[in-house]
Amino acid sequence: MREASLMKRIQAQAEAISRVTFYREKFKTWGLNPKDLNGMENFRRIPFMTLSDVQKDFEDHPPFGSLLHPDNIRVHFSPGPKGLIPVVFTQKDIREMNRANATCFRLAGVTSNDVVAVTFNYHLFIAGLSIHGGFETLGCKTIPVGPGETDRTLEILDRYGVTVLASNPSFAMKLFEKGARGIRVLFAGGEPFSSVEGYKERLRALCGGKITLIDAYGLAQAAPLARECLHETGLHIIDDLFFVEIVDPETGEVLPDGAKGEVVVTHLKKESGPLLRFRTGDLSIMERFTCPCGRRTTLPKGVVGSAREMVKIKGVKVYPSQVSLVLKAFPGLTGRYRMLISSTGTTERFDMLMEGEIQGEQDLARLQTSMKKALLIAPNQIEVVKQLENGPTIVDQRHNL
Amino acid sequence: MREASLMKRIQAQAEAISRVTFYREKFKTWGLNPKDLNGMENFRRIPFMTLSDVQKDFEDHPPFGSLLHPDNIRVHFSPGPKGLIPVVFTQKDIREMNRANATCFRLAGVTSNDVVAVTFNYHLFIAGLSIHGGFETLGCKTIPVGPGETDRTLEILDRYGVTVLASNPSFAMKLFEKGARGIRVLFAGGEPFSSVEGYKERLRALCGGKITLIDAYGLAQAAPLARECLHETGLHIIDDLFFVEIVDPETGEVLPDGAKGEVVVTHLKKESGPLLRFRTGDLSIMERFTCPCGRRTTLPKGVVGSAREMVKIKGVKVYPSQVSLVLKAFPGLTGRYRMLISSTGTTERFDMLMEGEIQGEQDLARLQTSMKKALLIAPNQIEVVKQLENGPTIVDQRHNL
Repeated sequence: MREASLMKRIQAQAEAISRVTFYREKFKTWGLNPKDLNGMENFRRIPFMTLSDVQKDFEDHPPFGSLLHPDNIRVHFSPGPKGLIPVVFTQKDIREMNRANATCFRLAGVTSNDVVAVTFNYHLFIAGLSIHGGFETLGCKTIPVGPGETDRTLEILDRYGVTVLASNPSFAMKLFEKGARGIRVLFAGGEPFSSVEGYKERLRALCGGKITLIDAYGLAQAAPLARECLHETGLHIIDDLFFVEIVDPETGEVLPDGAKGEVVVTHLKKESGPLLRFRTGDLSIMERFTCPCGRRTTLPKGVVGSAREMVKIKGVKVYPSQVSLVLKAFPGLTGRYRMLISSTGTTERFDMLMEGEIQGEQDLARLQTSMKKALLIAPNQIEVVKQLENGPTIVDQRHNL
Repeated sequence: MREASLMKRIQAQAEAISRVTFYREKFKTWGLNPKDLNGMENFRRIPFMTLSDVQKDFEDHPPFGSLLHPDNIRVHFSPGPKGLIPVVFTQKDIREMNRANATCFRLAGVTSNDVVAVTFNYHLFIAGLSIHGGFETLGCKTIPVGPGETDRTLEILDRYGVTVLASNPSFAMKLFEKGARGIRVLFAGGEPFSSVEGYKERLRALCGGKITLIDAYGLAQAAPLARECLHETGLHIIDDLFFVEIVDPETGEVLPDGAKGEVVVTHLKKESGPLLRFRTGDLSIMERFTCPCGRRTTLPKGVVGSAREMVKIKGVKVYPSQVSLVLKAFPGLTGRYRMLISSTGTTERFDMLMEGEIQGEQDLARLQTSMKKALLIAPNQIEVVKQLENGPTIVDQRHNL
């Protein structure tokens, strides 16, 4: 979207939501009027929101917060630090969400002739109902299977000629390993997928290579945020519903395309629970190119970690969640690890313990290389142990001298 | 609905569905044309359908049967003798179902200001999604809670100010026993409720008397078939979607209002999976009176048993499922029982064994009376034993002489 039309969309949204007490007061505090949002500079004067702000609003205005639209008809929840946090929708919000999902599914090659099985949970959380709504909107024969129940799911896939599976990638893997056949398109969400090295290749090999593997990224508060298309070039941001910025998680500075940073989301159309410059806590890299599908704003590597667990080692920001993504590509490792950071005067030392087994020097070298690529600094030493004692992920002894 | 407008509706539906191969051939076999359905006499020339016919259609035209509309977008299932049976819907079918449910909820006193918790299962089966859709259509803040999880449900009811609960009556009872407060309307489905003597009274007492208790009856193949309104005069048939007949389960003869018989359903608007004169296997009594809510066709005692287990004793048709309904009103009894039927020459004898404990002669006499009222014949003797040996519900020794 060009900046001029984006700013018009932002102005219209700001005007709509400034009728709500919450934002009317905010705009006053910020010294801004929705009309002032005619350029990026002014927009960026809006301070970031976080999940804590949302949580506080629910506490101050129980039970659904001051951002609830009077026409709200659906209430989901997302896990929060103090229990479940409501996630709210008007009929129009649901229609926009369904339409956006339907467009993504169409761009992934799904048609109204497809029979779809949705194995996400439909209770309380958003995944099941919202994904189901998208497939129904596209006109597919949509089966609300729900999670778990591997054997029953396999029977349904087989007996009813299911061609599209919407599922966590790990459950899909289990179904394919147990002989699921006939799936043309996998829509995967809820877990890291395209960001895990080799994950797609393993799944594709199980299916004989002929499958479209679609990764998805969304928050309960901002669904559907980004989806892959059949060209599998990365997660395209649904930019008719969301404006996404990538910012430095420490300084809040907006980063240029291609730089890794925290995903910040602004709703462009949401009626109930609208958010402005909401810090997701998720790390990604944004790039702009025209995919053959026509979408242009893309997170090519998916979501690559969490900004909330950052630790600085040797001056470099390290996000432990990125370690997990690397470890998933080494099947001999269990995924448990410990980062040991120490210092002698001005020299810092960074060692890692991994649980599991590794096949010889070559794999250890590959692990070392992958780790450096992911973290931007190489551990001084990686030691692989059969069983890691329980304890914290990060042991930082720099201040204990 | 007057017969003239009902017949117009039936003709229109018959014309629409006669474009499907299944019904085109059926109409030919029956020697009928949709236009001939201009009076009840001709309509009743249509032979009954049963679940076996539906099952056979799925086997002959896998996987979704020959009654699937090309625009079908949702597939649920219902349990059948040979596994899950698909239950199919177009967008229009879903819209009609949602609208009909919304109307019923409105007639039960629910408004768009209500916060609704739906504890039915949303996966595979129809209850959760269809009830949820009705409440959203009415504009309520609807929470897809899902089943089980008593403590979490109690927390949600309390924390989010839930005013309407949609639930199995037994789960609602559990929630009220554990202290659920603030519910104005209970929409109960999935289990016998208004047909069980004293059930509503026990639930109402738990809530301090101030609650509207709404019973519901539906089949996956015909939802929503009948619902109570806030006047609690019985289950009103949703007669803009369904035409209901009550027939003698043995002879198929259509019975007059007030007579107990099998519920037979004809879809008036369904696009996908439309059924004509479908035998439900459920027993009820239909009455026509104008309820203060405006609805006129009512099953005042709800569903009172199953036509599938009928046994004739002393010339009277006895349905064991009616025994279960009676036993639920005696908390000391476990609900397990055995019917013993024997004969000496032309004299038949009918005895009953019940499991549990009964408080003295007075309760035994009350049990005897209730049983005669339900079955129309009195058992020669009722014996209450602490533990009933495993075995069949009916032991018929009349032919073993």
